[in-house]
Amino acid sequence: MVELTTAELHGALEDSALNSMNFLNEVAGHYPDAIQLAAGRPYEEFFDVADIHRYLRLFCRHLSEKLGFPDEQVRRTVFQYGRTKGVIHDLVATNLALDEGVAVDPESIVVTVGCQEAIFLVLRALRTDERDLLLAVSPTYVGLTGAARLVDLPVRPVASGEHGIDLDDLVRGIRQARAAGRRPRACYVMPDFANPSGMSMDLPARRRLLEVAGDENILLLEDNPYGLFHGDAERLPTLKAMDESRQVVYLGSFAKSVLPGVRVGYVVADQRVAAADGTVGLLADQLSKIKSMLTVNTAPIAQAVVGGKLVEQNCSLAKANTRERAVYAGNLRRVLDGLAQRFPHAANGSAEVSWTAPAGGFFVVVTVPFVVDDSLLERSARDYGVLWTPMRHFYDDGAAVRALRLSCSTVTATEIDAGLDRLAALVGDELRRIQATAELL
Amino acid sequence: MVELTTAELHGALEDSALNSMNFLNEVAGHYPDAIQLAAGRPYEEFFDVADIHRYLRLFCRHLSEKLGFPDEQVRRTVFQYGRTKGVIHDLVATNLALDEGVAVDPESIVVTVGCQEAIFLVLRALRTDERDLLLAVSPTYVGLTGAARLVDLPVRPVASGEHGIDLDDLVRGIRQARAAGRRPRACYVMPDFANPSGMSMDLPARRRLLEVAGDENILLLEDNPYGLFHGDAERLPTLKAMDESRQVVYLGSFAKSVLPGVRVGYVVADQRVAAADGTVGLLADQLSKIKSMLTVNTAPIAQAVVGGKLVEQNCSLAKANTRERAVYAGNLRRVLDGLAQRFPHAANGSAEVSWTAPAGGFFVVVTVPFVVDDSLLERSARDYGVLWTPMRHFYDDGAAVRALRLSCSTVTATEIDAGLDRLAALVGDELRRIQATAELL
Repeated sequence: MVELTTAELHGALEDSALNSMNFLNEVAGHYPDAIQLAAGRPYEEFFDVADIHRYLRLFCRHLSEKLGFPDEQVRRTVFQYGRTKGVIHDLVATNLALDEGVAVDPESIVVTVGCQEAIFLVLRALRTDERDLLLAVSPTYVGLTGAARLVDLPVRPVASGEHGIDLDDLVRGIRQARAAGRRPRACYVMPDFANPSGMSMDLPARRRLLEVAGDENILLLEDNPYGLFHGDAERLPTLKAMDESRQVVYLGSFAKSVLPGVRVGYVVADQRVAAADGTVGLLADQLSKIKSMLTVNTAPIAQAVVGGKLVEQNCSLAKANTRERAVYAGNLRRVLDGLAQRFPHAANGSAEVSWTAPAGGFFVVVTVPFVVDDSLLERSARDYGVLWTPMRHFYDDGAAVRALRLSCSTVTATEIDAGLDRLAALVGDELRRIQATAELL
Repeated sequence: MVELTTAELHGALEDSALNSMNFLNEVAGHYPDAIQLAAGRPYEEFFDVADIHRYLRLFCRHLSEKLGFPDEQVRRTVFQYGRTKGVIHDLVATNLALDEGVAVDPESIVVTVGCQEAIFLVLRALRTDERDLLLAVSPTYVGLTGAARLVDLPVRPVASGEHGIDLDDLVRGIRQARAAGRRPRACYVMPDFANPSGMSMDLPARRRLLEVAGDENILLLEDNPYGLFHGDAERLPTLKAMDESRQVVYLGSFAKSVLPGVRVGYVVADQRVAAADGTVGLLADQLSKIKSMLTVNTAPIAQAVVGGKLVEQNCSLAKANTRERAVYAGNLRRVLDGLAQRFPHAANGSAEVSWTAPAGGFFVVVTVPFVVDDSLLERSARDYGVLWTPMRHFYDDGAAVRALRLSCSTVTATEIDAGLDRLAALVGDELRRIQATAELL
């Protein structure tokens, strides 16, 4: 009888990064009636199964009418194994040109199983031995930390400062690592409405970040799942749009702009790579080799759904998401207004409870004067009926954190109001408990 | 300007295992008119785009009518992020019970992005440090070797012998490794119509292999993409069906039995794993944690297509593939008969050219008296118009190999005849060249 222990399995499996996702899902599963201010899932009210059929048909028609494929080649494209780098790379390139002002050779794009696989491919490629090191703005998306664990790549946190990244801390991190014989390879950033902080980098911060990356010779891994949902604020150019020296590897997702159930994302990796035999190719081709041994290719049927939506929208998803953008902006406003109503002292800065005020994206971070841990979340779900995410899951050091993340992407206005009432009740009870304890001392 | 070299990227990227797939695809791409006796893709003539729409509809109806999901939950199931281990695990478990006589808890199944991701998940879990080692029957599927490279896990070849695996060599490999301070964790096997050898293990060999694995305390990774295509031969039970002590991790694929373009496979991992905190769970749950950081989940839309086909066929794919099984059996017979016609001396054992005679599956291995390398393949494609696979790609040692693999899965009868004529012309020319050289000496 084979009996195993986790000690006989890869170390990542006992790591908090890989277990936090599980824990959060479990809590949500145990309390299905609790209001969902935890999940970063997209809004569901616009989902329609008929769309999938239409997108599939549109993509097949695109192959036959636009690209002139005979029927058997159309069938082969959606049914068979296909090109490792994907079959919608041209459409994705056009989308990047239209929506992001990013001009890239379609050959530098690898279509991936969601952005998560894109992250994994890049980290797997960059991690050669124990000297390699990744930097990441902290707090950090847990999927980045988890993927880094799978390739035994340490992540050095970079302070987020006031502009989404503290460049002095970044330079310090790079130089300290080099002084210690390490190789800092890249810095992971989410310049637009970051998960979980909600913070964005302003234009000067983006410019300086590119300069620093160039000076220090590290790659920037730019992850941009929320860029299209910029509320009423004007969109700023992505780092990739400003990248003149191929310093930026761009990580893209269709989970929020098309739908999550296709699991289609991509990576733009136009960096030049010289092989041992002297030939020079693209980093995308190296990532493609890794992908061929990981998932072979991204399900052509899933790509066809995204491809059909791109065809229908003439490759622009910005306008196609007008409705969604309005919902997210409205929800964000309602959360921010709702917090101000329920914690009125925050307005004059005298309060114990404060929060971020992002212009877009899905997330608001609420800071409180008590430690927010998993047991508080469980109590919140059980006794108050509201789910949120303890911010400690986004820090790698295990230290206590006095903040929580609210997500406003998958809830209705009524749910937001009720959810905030419940949160306010929880916070009020915790504050009273602190006061009572303080008075006893 | 960022310029990279492959020396600054993970070592696997310069490895032959990751480059052979690329090379073979490139040759096929350069000579699109050459006859495809290389690709192990399924037969295409039965593909019909209407099937995809029907499967999607059937799965949605299954969710609403059979499982009683309200509309919004149906939409959520196919549109949203979902359960990491998959949403068709119950249907897959029923399929395993019906088609394979394998009784497993659906919770021990992880639905993956093709069988390739299943392989990766298992190897990632098993590789803890540089002492770990994998064994694999040689010649070996290149996707196994490639995935092992990505987690820096060495693969020790095991001779295939006359019964698909040389058990003495297996035991020798395990004991030698242990004596050298290594940890042999598992042996990868394809007991039915293996890729590339076409060999199958008979029933006594399967029994003894399970005994050896139990005695030596290693896992067996059983990969079974071709089991349903057993020609006129009776099916033998899989190792998993005979596995009484959870010695076998079963790797499943729907690429050949449903369609490749969904990229849906699965792993059955019912081994018990004790965590550091004393809780005991399933290996499947550990694999699921890795998957959550690799691809998050397998595209629900792709799972829905497979789910719809399973629903339509009452969860049995054996009968559903009667037509395909007949095509593959007919093609295999035509290849074997065609070889006998073109190399008539082989029948009495006096010939320089010989080949395997598998009862099913996709592959025949032809042995010739000259080295078969990539340059010969290129000449074959260019000058003779026929593609096949040099067997050296399935050996890890780089030694010269005098054999090639023919695949008969994706060709018509006419193409087989023409392809074999061209192959015979190539082989004839090579034989004459050898004779001429010998006469000169």
